[in-house]
Amino acid sequence: MGKSGEKIRAAIAGATGYTGAELIRILSRHPSVEITHIYSRQHAGVPISKVYPAFTGVVERSCEKMDEEAAGRDADVVFLALPHKLPMGVAPAILGAGAKVVDLSADFRFSDAAVYEAHYEPHLAPELLPRAVYGLTELYRDRVAGADLLGNPGCYPTCSLLALVPFLRKGLVEPDGIVIDAKSGVSGAGRGTSLTTHYCEVTEGFSAYKVASHRHTPEIEQIVSREAGKKVALSFVPHLTPMSRGMLATCYVKATAPMSTEDALAVLADCYQGSPFVKVLPKGILPQTRHVRGTNCAHLSAVAEKSTGRLILVSVIDNLGKGASGQAVQNMNVMFGLPETRGLDATPYPV
Amino acid sequence: MGKSGEKIRAAIAGATGYTGAELIRILSRHPSVEITHIYSRQHAGVPISKVYPAFTGVVERSCEKMDEEAAGRDADVVFLALPHKLPMGVAPAILGAGAKVVDLSADFRFSDAAVYEAHYEPHLAPELLPRAVYGLTELYRDRVAGADLLGNPGCYPTCSLLALVPFLRKGLVEPDGIVIDAKSGVSGAGRGTSLTTHYCEVTEGFSAYKVASHRHTPEIEQIVSREAGKKVALSFVPHLTPMSRGMLATCYVKATAPMSTEDALAVLADCYQGSPFVKVLPKGILPQTRHVRGTNCAHLSAVAEKSTGRLILVSVIDNLGKGASGQAVQNMNVMFGLPETRGLDATPYPV
Amino acid sequence: MGKSGEKIRAAIAGATGYTGAELIRILSRHPSVEITHIYSRQHAGVPISKVYPAFTGVVERSCEKMDEEAAGRDADVVFLALPHKLPMGVAPAILGAGAKVVDLSADFRFSDAAVYEAHYEPHLAPELLPRAVYGLTELYRDRVAGADLLGNPGCYPTCSLLALVPFLRKGLVEPDGIVIDAKSGVSGAGRGTSLTTHYCEVTEGFSAYKVASHRHTPEIEQIVSREAGKKVALSFVPHLTPMSRGMLATCYVKATAPMSTEDALAVLADCYQGSPFVKVLPKGILPQTRHVRGTNCAHLSAVAEKSTGRLILVSVIDNLGKGASGQAVQNMNVMFGLPETRGLDATPYPV
Amino acid sequence: MGKSGEKIRAAIAGATGYTGAELIRILSRHPSVEITHIYSRQHAGVPISKVYPAFTGVVERSCEKMDEEAAGRDADVVFLALPHKLPMGVAPAILGAGAKVVDLSADFRFSDAAVYEAHYEPHLAPELLPRAVYGLTELYRDRVAGADLLGNPGCYPTCSLLALVPFLRKGLVEPDGIVIDAKSGVSGAGRGTSLTTHYCEVTEGFSAYKVASHRHTPEIEQIVSREAGKKVALSFVPHLTPMSRGMLATCYVKATAPMSTEDALAVLADCYQGSPFVKVLPKGILPQTRHVRGTNCAHLSAVAEKSTGRLILVSVIDNLGKGASGQAVQNMNVMFGLPETRGLDATPYPV
Repeated sequence: MGKSGEKIRAAIAGATGYTGAELIRILSRHPSVEITHIYSRQHAGVPISKVYPAFTGVVERSCEKMDEEAAGRDADVVFLALPHKLPMGVAPAILGAGAKVVDLSADFRFSDAAVYEAHYEPHLAPELLPRAVYGLTELYRDRVAGADLLGNPGCYPTCSLLALVPFLRKGLVEPDGIVIDAKSGVSGAGRGTSLTTHYCEVTEGFSAYKVASHRHTPEIEQIVSREAGKKVALSFVPHLTPMSRGMLATCYVKATAPMSTEDALAVLADCYQGSPFVKVLPKGILPQTRHVRGTNCAHLSAVAEKSTGRLILVSVIDNLGKGASGQAVQNMNVMFGLPETRGLDATPYPV
Repeated sequence: MGKSGEKIRAAIAGATGYTGAELIRILSRHPSVEITHIYSRQHAGVPISKVYPAFTGVVERSCEKMDEEAAGRDADVVFLALPHKLPMGVAPAILGAGAKVVDLSADFRFSDAAVYEAHYEPHLAPELLPRAVYGLTELYRDRVAGADLLGNPGCYPTCSLLALVPFLRKGLVEPDGIVIDAKSGVSGAGRGTSLTTHYCEVTEGFSAYKVASHRHTPEIEQIVSREAGKKVALSFVPHLTPMSRGMLATCYVKATAPMSTEDALAVLADCYQGSPFVKVLPKGILPQTRHVRGTNCAHLSAVAEKSTGRLILVSVIDNLGKGASGQAVQNMNVMFGLPETRGLDATPYPV
Repeated sequence: MGKSGEKIRAAIAGATGYTGAELIRILSRHPSVEITHIYSRQHAGVPISKVYPAFTGVVERSCEKMDEEAAGRDADVVFLALPHKLPMGVAPAILGAGAKVVDLSADFRFSDAAVYEAHYEPHLAPELLPRAVYGLTELYRDRVAGADLLGNPGCYPTCSLLALVPFLRKGLVEPDGIVIDAKSGVSGAGRGTSLTTHYCEVTEGFSAYKVASHRHTPEIEQIVSREAGKKVALSFVPHLTPMSRGMLATCYVKATAPMSTEDALAVLADCYQGSPFVKVLPKGILPQTRHVRGTNCAHLSAVAEKSTGRLILVSVIDNLGKGASGQAVQNMNVMFGLPETRGLDATPYPV
Repeated sequence: MGKSGEKIRAAIAGATGYTGAELIRILSRHPSVEITHIYSRQHAGVPISKVYPAFTGVVERSCEKMDEEAAGRDADVVFLALPHKLPMGVAPAILGAGAKVVDLSADFRFSDAAVYEAHYEPHLAPELLPRAVYGLTELYRDRVAGADLLGNPGCYPTCSLLALVPFLRKGLVEPDGIVIDAKSGVSGAGRGTSLTTHYCEVTEGFSAYKVASHRHTPEIEQIVSREAGKKVALSFVPHLTPMSRGMLATCYVKATAPMSTEDALAVLADCYQGSPFVKVLPKGILPQTRHVRGTNCAHLSAVAEKSTGRLILVSVIDNLGKGASGQAVQNMNVMFGLPETRGLDATPYPV
């Protein structure tokens, strides 16, 4: 539990973005958490229900401007739902003041500062990187349990790696030649306005973007390489889908030896036994993003293609749930010794 | 609580339709309820997670064929999420076996069988009508508390009456000349397939339907007449909106005496003080269906139009929430003496 | 035809907004028109196909900065698809240089400068107002034919007035007590970015806006008053619908004498005989915005409600078609003596 | 031109499905075509404008029951927009009566009856297969010109092969190891009703379907094998996108030798020089389905990925346009010696 009483005192920085607001949603009903501060530079002084009228009469707290030292003193955990670059600036002070940090940006996802810097910018706190844990909970649960600085994974890496790693770990697929074709809802682009997110430019359309140049590629490659025990390059293409929340990754991998669909499903089921949020669907049922919308769940499936020797793995998550804020809370649960599903076990909407 | 132990034993008939599945969603996490049976003629023997894959690993119960007497014996309350006509056939046996009934169809909404029969068909249990309570909770809470047969209101009546009745009760608006222009999401049409709900025939379109002929008109007129103390005819036009869940009603009424927007908002606020699900928005903020999506909430607003002497009332609900299954559970809470918000207080999604 | 040759030379100012781009679409294939210039301050020098990749290889013209005098000299007609205030600044020079003007803003829609100024801002060219013609083509075709300065109607007024005026002209409905409940697609808000048009804030939602305060109200009232021969106030509420293009107006009016649905449909049919773009649907068929999407058509229907003595009129248009650019070209056709349907007679999309 | 006069007499069988109705839309304004019959078993005797109200007052022809011999006598070309199996039953009689046949089903797409039969069913007219031409116009224009029986390609094969074949023909990519990840709008599923196309089950969702088992796989493999000069197996996964019309294919191929993005784009540009419907976008611009919506165009792009040696090809079409009815008319143009763009050159909608 929290350091000074019964409930974990949690603060949220960047509270008015989509992932920040989703953190508020989850934590406001989390039985072991008390939200003590929500921070927003842009909306300091404004009630969050003005920014998100859905919260009217339900969450009636006002945004504040964050002072990182005070933030670290007043909370047991601070969630950083900020654009990359900002978190590495404030994390040292927050940690120094005694709070744990769950960072939803890319700042603490890379073990090698050089890789981060090649795709983002100069790192401001490289000395913290060895201390940071990559929080793909199901795959690194033990390390997460001991973390006080957690790099919460990107949505695309989460969705893809949940499907790939079980096979890589057992050497059942070739680490080379992997293709990941991923599709995301629009909320992944954040709440900022741009032509790209204008309703009329999105509805009834579909497009690829950042082909062979998305910054989640090195993040995925880092983990695939770690699990494969060798440096791996892969193809990753993200696409924008006319939906608000949801993400699907279709992964194409070469099996190292002939494998049936049943075998492949068993590999997944075996890996995620004891992981309540990851469901391996029965043979013949394929994942749909709608089925995990608003949840911290992932649905996985696999099909063995005889003619090519490939496995085709399909994985869905909610990009704001398991792909961001849901997993952040799941990691917090693990970091504080709570049951992993605490506060995350609402029944999904049927429609 | 329930008649035979600590938790209320609840059964759901018509469990695989949208309102039935939404009942499952809500009740599966209701802290004072245990779902004991889910009934579906069409899917008897089939796990509900096959019908709604979102429930995979979360709700793993199978559908059964209902025997109404057994249903009444094995439960403290039976929710009937069935097409009209079926509920009036089974309610007598269920009540006779000792369970309460919450009926989501139109069968027990009318106090006068003749009105029902003029718009639906011959009534099979007219002797039960005097016993049935119209469950617009906020407006008839006391009667709901004593009910064992509850007619859960239609979605359009719920949305419209929440806005209109506070003014009618105080004689502040003329009962004649009311116009209700209402807009619903597609889930109101149910899960059955038809050209009307085909994605390509709905997306990026908008249409009126059943102009001056929808069966919710007499239901609304019944309550408006009751509250106004005189027989009233009004204009009601429903429209189909390209969205899954949500409903908005715009009501145009003539004020009996000059009233300001502030006055009108105060009338609403006064009426719904102590009603946690109905929020009157501050002046200048207008309701949006997205802000109540997935909840049992209603958001209300009012604008006084000086040039015409009209009040324009805007009301939003989720047609499957406050418009159906949410209100059904709210009514159950009241009928069993539980706090009204029990099991219905999840924080809404920000996006 | 045009003043200096065979084809009408047309220029478009504000070419990169949605109505400007729609004008380009229509005029680029108009058999009697040659587009000579497209003007855009923001994108001067940029090929229009960079701004709208749909035009790649089809319309390969570049945007220019407009000089209004040159614009008037080099064209037979200049379309002003600009925000209000700008057109009244440039129209005098364009007219002075010899070109006709079709203005899609509100600047030349009002005969009384005081009404314009009460809802917009000080008028810069009030001396031109008597010369300007309000271009609701079907209703004022004769005046349009003689116009050289045309105020193209707003989308909401077009949609509403097409339904109302036939009855007002014959004194068949009371001019007082009219309610217009209108619903628009998002493209009506233009291409500028704002939270209001962010995909995630629009999709799967519905809302009212500018209740009793939209600037199209005085425009509608002006025409209703003119046709009714008395000053009229009415209620008009616009709503935002999760679709890109389309508009539906539901109008509630009191009949002066009992009228059947058949009678009402006959009044509409009679009025629009000889108007190829306005179709009165058979009894029992209700208009849908999808059926006029991308066209210059309006679909109309009427239902007589016996219990209230009201007529309920439903009207649909494409807000960018008949509600803006389509009608602008229709007006140009009439102004230049061309057949009204020239360049506007593409077969609608079935889906 | 047509055999008996100035205009080509065209008949459409299956006129009330989406591809049939789209054929009506295109051909009704085609300057060299006269529609002489539209056939629909289900709606025989019904005006097409009752089935598609968008056609009200524009296309006012009634559906008839087809007699194939009469159909062949009364027309110069018969379009078969029927489910597979039906076309091979009627094509012989139509051809025998002297008309050309453009078949939009799979019945005449395979040169080898055994392949067809392995994925569909026993072929009823295998003797016609050598006579049938696979109508991917840009790739087989010469053969199309001489065809009287044309197998119009599937939407997925059209979209994928336009991107792949230019490289295969020149031996620039390896025929083995190809991955095609494709995404389609819902209209590809046709107008029939099913839970799969229910608005509430589609909107705001995304899913894969028929992974490694879609019947377009052998069709694509047939052409890839033909162009590669060897039997090829590839991975093809289709996905359902919440949009009505549109298709995007992302193709992953291994270059046989190092190639830059510029090189790859040049290969495409070179191949489609003189093909007015296929546009290769400038480097840095990626295709979006919205930009080809409602047209017969394809937009293509290519990116060379240095780290993997792969080319990533992105291709978009409208599945009902270039993916079905648009290409069918394009093929008809070529078969009758008309300019390829005749009747297909409308300017695309900007929004």
